[in-house]
Amino acid sequence: MTDKRIAANTGATEFDRAVALQPVGDGRWRAEIQDGWDFGGTPNGGYLLSIAAGALIALTGRPDPITITAHYLAPAQPGPAELEGEILKSGRRHATARGAIRQGSRVVAQLLGTFGELAESASGICHESGLPDLPPPESCIAPAPTPGGFVPPPITERVEIRLHPAHAGFAIGQPHGRAEMGGWARFADGRPVDTLALPLLADSFPPPVFNCGIKLAWVPTIELTVHLHKRPAPGWLGEWFTTDHIAGGYLEEDGVIWDAAGDVVAVSRQMAILPR
Amino acid sequence: MTDKRIAANTGATEFDRAVALQPVGDGRWRAEIQDGWDFGGTPNGGYLLSIAAGALIALTGRPDPITITAHYLAPAQPGPAELEGEILKSGRRHATARGAIRQGSRVVAQLLGTFGELAESASGICHESGLPDLPPPESCIAPAPTPGGFVPPPITERVEIRLHPAHAGFAIGQPHGRAEMGGWARFADGRPVDTLALPLLADSFPPPVFNCGIKLAWVPTIELTVHLHKRPAPGWLGEWFTTDHIAGGYLEEDGVIWDAAGDVVAVSRQMAILPR
Repeated sequence: MTDKRIAANTGATEFDRAVALQPVGDGRWRAEIQDGWDFGGTPNGGYLLSIAAGALIALTGRPDPITITAHYLAPAQPGPAELEGEILKSGRRHATARGAIRQGSRVVAQLLGTFGELAESASGICHESGLPDLPPPESCIAPAPTPGGFVPPPITERVEIRLHPAHAGFAIGQPHGRAEMGGWARFADGRPVDTLALPLLADSFPPPVFNCGIKLAWVPTIELTVHLHKRPAPGWLGEWFTTDHIAGGYLEEDGVIWDAAGDVVAVSRQMAILPR
Repeated sequence: MTDKRIAANTGATEFDRAVALQPVGDGRWRAEIQDGWDFGGTPNGGYLLSIAAGALIALTGRPDPITITAHYLAPAQPGPAELEGEILKSGRRHATARGAIRQGSRVVAQLLGTFGELAESASGICHESGLPDLPPPESCIAPAPTPGGFVPPPITERVEIRLHPAHAGFAIGQPHGRAEMGGWARFADGRPVDTLALPLLADSFPPPVFNCGIKLAWVPTIELTVHLHKRPAPGWLGEWFTTDHIAGGYLEEDGVIWDAAGDVVAVSRQMAILPR
């Protein structure tokens, strides 16, 4: 871990390299979608959203995404990608922009987001429903290979997660019966999680439906929206994902992410296709 | 009510006129944003989303929005508007498109949505968390002028609502203390609610923060996303809105809408600016 921790201090972390953009002028960038940010071959939708957020932050000159939505049109592949962005409105408090990620002739994702500046402090934060009850990280479960054949997906080498002890049973064929998945997350190399990384972190847990007996298969995201509320304090992030509704072959997945200060820093919702 | 009920049967309902589009070719339409679909002067964001959904349904040839997001860039005004749409991908199961609503030189709203075909039956619907406990419509409260000066907003003449008896106190200066607003809704003229109207219905309740002592002022929506799960059965729709997080001057508002068959037909989430 030492080398990785050093990398974090120089800014050359694996995440920063994975979302690096090369401007090619006129609201366009080149990126290199990296291998290893996936659950089984297809680069994670949250990772793509972080790449695109970086482009639109650069374009708008606003430091933080406030609300950002991606629609996923085709599975991305590790390798070169082209990004484009367009400012739709630049106001005093907010700028709104759209963007797209292309690989070759295919649009992989289309984005729409509003950007601004978030606070680092928690003033004025109200948690109407409180935070879920989550044991401390040291009492939670790190994904590990199981005799039943479960192999932790590649992304967990980069985004370290610790699952609620009652939520990890899906990996050994013992789902707890509710579409719920809670735990902790941080970068394995110690890079602090900022608002650029929150979209990735909002999509880095196993789907909560794995805990209600759904087949452990890829759950393709159609659309992911992340609302950002605050710049995260350093340390582990608490994350809690639920699926309340499954209908007509679709499911949605709601997430709440809070920081070590106990403040909600982001909420996420995605619509995905239920594996058959 | 008789004339209005007849109108519903001929298709010439007030809502249908309010979302009518005149194609002007090449993915462009003219619309007339109507007065009376507002909470106090500014046409409702859900109403604009229904207008745009109609354009993108026409463009994609898919009958139902599956997930649709609008970012609101400037307050709309009653009067002429121009819509534009572009198909981003047209696949076997889904088509994804973006669009914009303009008035004069201003972009009022920018849209991104995925369209397809939803079921009319409830097969395969799972409600993990169940539905809120809502008394029947006849035991709920219709908005009415109060001695304290509350005047029901114009939209309630078109979208009839009945609020949970415990949630209506905000109108007489007695908010119940939780950011929660539940009740029933339907068109006043009896027009059935279809997936075109659901975006409007997802934004037709007073903000739940009115029930936790926030000033009764316009709560400007930055972004509204509606996920549609099923074509609604005829009758009253149950609706339940909550705000779990208020932070940094922003709030979010989550909605669940179910039909008379007890099936969740849509969920909504918006990010809005907290009134000062």
